[in-house]
Amino acid sequence: MKVAFLGPATSFSHDAALRAFPKATLLLEAPSIQSVFSAVESGKADAGVVPIENSTEGSITTTLDLLLSSEFLISGEIFIDVVHCLLAKPGTGGIKKIFSHSQAFAQCGEWLQKNYPDVELIGTSSTSSAASHAAMEPGSAAIASKNAAKMFGLQVLAEGIQDLGFNKTRFVAIGKKPAKPLASNKTAMFFAVKDRPGALFDCLEGFKGQNINLTRLESRPSKKSAWDYVFFVEFLGDLSEQRVRTALAALKKCAKMVKLLGSYPRLGE
Amino acid sequence: MKVAFLGPATSFSHDAALRAFPKATLLLEAPSIQSVFSAVESGKADAGVVPIENSTEGSITTTLDLLLSSEFLISGEIFIDVVHCLLAKPGTGGIKKIFSHSQAFAQCGEWLQKNYPDVELIGTSSTSSAASHAAMEPGSAAIASKNAAKMFGLQVLAEGIQDLGFNKTRFVAIGKKPAKPLASNKTAMFFAVKDRPGALFDCLEGFKGQNINLTRLESRPSKKSAWDYVFFVEFLGDLSEQRVRTALAALKKCAKMVKLLGSYPRLGE
Repeated sequence: MKVAFLGPATSFSHDAALRAFPKATLLLEAPSIQSVFSAVESGKADAGVVPIENSTEGSITTTLDLLLSSEFLISGEIFIDVVHCLLAKPGTGGIKKIFSHSQAFAQCGEWLQKNYPDVELIGTSSTSSAASHAAMEPGSAAIASKNAAKMFGLQVLAEGIQDLGFNKTRFVAIGKKPAKPLASNKTAMFFAVKDRPGALFDCLEGFKGQNINLTRLESRPSKKSAWDYVFFVEFLGDLSEQRVRTALAALKKCAKMVKLLGSYPRLGE
Repeated sequence: MKVAFLGPATSFSHDAALRAFPKATLLLEAPSIQSVFSAVESGKADAGVVPIENSTEGSITTTLDLLLSSEFLISGEIFIDVVHCLLAKPGTGGIKKIFSHSQAFAQCGEWLQKNYPDVELIGTSSTSSAASHAAMEPGSAAIASKNAAKMFGLQVLAEGIQDLGFNKTRFVAIGKKPAKPLASNKTAMFFAVKDRPGALFDCLEGFKGQNINLTRLESRPSKKSAWDYVFFVEFLGDLSEQRVRTALAALKKCAKMVKLLGSYPRLGE
């Protein structure tokens, strides 16, 4: 089993891939979320692991948009505790620049405002790549994981600097094959509603009728025209269950579009 | 009238502020969305103009989260066409780095992949600040507006490089005073639902009953505990209308939390 993840090594995605696929024979480092999808599409990898949501900052919109525009199934979800650290080369004096991913800056916004209000924040493609910048550039630091400190020979100046006590990222495994049916599975899909009063209400009626609990409802631009949206929805239930089939049949009658992303279990626990 | 906007000058927010408040006596440049809110909070500005949503990339989550955590009203909305350009100093040869805001990178993702697949992308706090970096650093370029090219003495290497033909950003004016009641107004609010099957469905029932059209429904982390959400909702109608009051009374009976952000007209047209 070959698994692609959002690299470089020491990234939180790497952790998630190891947890979700402990028996993987090969872990492939991809430079972007888009590249993880491409690796699975081309057959270079059998599965991919990508972040889909953070408990503080919300959806990873790149992942949602790629799930909408391509033909992949979700085959599992993995939760990772995200602990951010401020890292710098030993002996670094006055810090003038901090490198990190924009999501990490957002998750540590109050801490940065309090401790480094006048420092320049520079966005990088991942927290690991931020650490590699901090290792090379004098007078700089990075927000990244403790693992990244080890890999790039950096010192941990502060640990657990995220603003909220809880900070978790949910990852999903993507692939071409559905997961095994299980009543404890979750199901994900997109749907679009017509532009009229009550359209969303009507589309949710089948789920209420079958007592199905929606765990997530997120809106994304359809990218077909301005201010036109699709909803990303997850609910507790498996596509093989009769009550789920009944609810989806009702949805298909009133939605403008329905795209199923499969049913999947929680992995790595 | 003093109006704070997300600077620097030549930013798309600057355009929006000029359009929304053509009679403003003072336009105050703020370095971040947070600073726009602070300027209005402290009384340095009477109103602020901040981006809330892009037609390609979706919500500006910083703005939604600040509206949730503070006590402001929305008093108007403004739409701006966003045309991105690749800018560099005249005579710049091989481009090794491109500076821009993460939203602009996302809006031009396919164009960049096709034209500059191997160039380093560096995030900045605004497209104007990206232009100022490109003006200083050899071998670099910026994605920013045509106005920014003029201000920083840069050449337009490519114009209209956003991936989709339409690319608009919606801004809102924020302040402490409600806008004038008008039947053509929109209304914005947050609400949270209980964690049980049918909870969202039940909360939308009052709107369906009063034939009120929801134009937007977006989920955000509540930041109170992990995987707990609030919905940001906008609908066609004014808080002074009886049908709106009836729908809201029904919502308040089933929602866990309701926070109104006021009713407002479209500005600058």
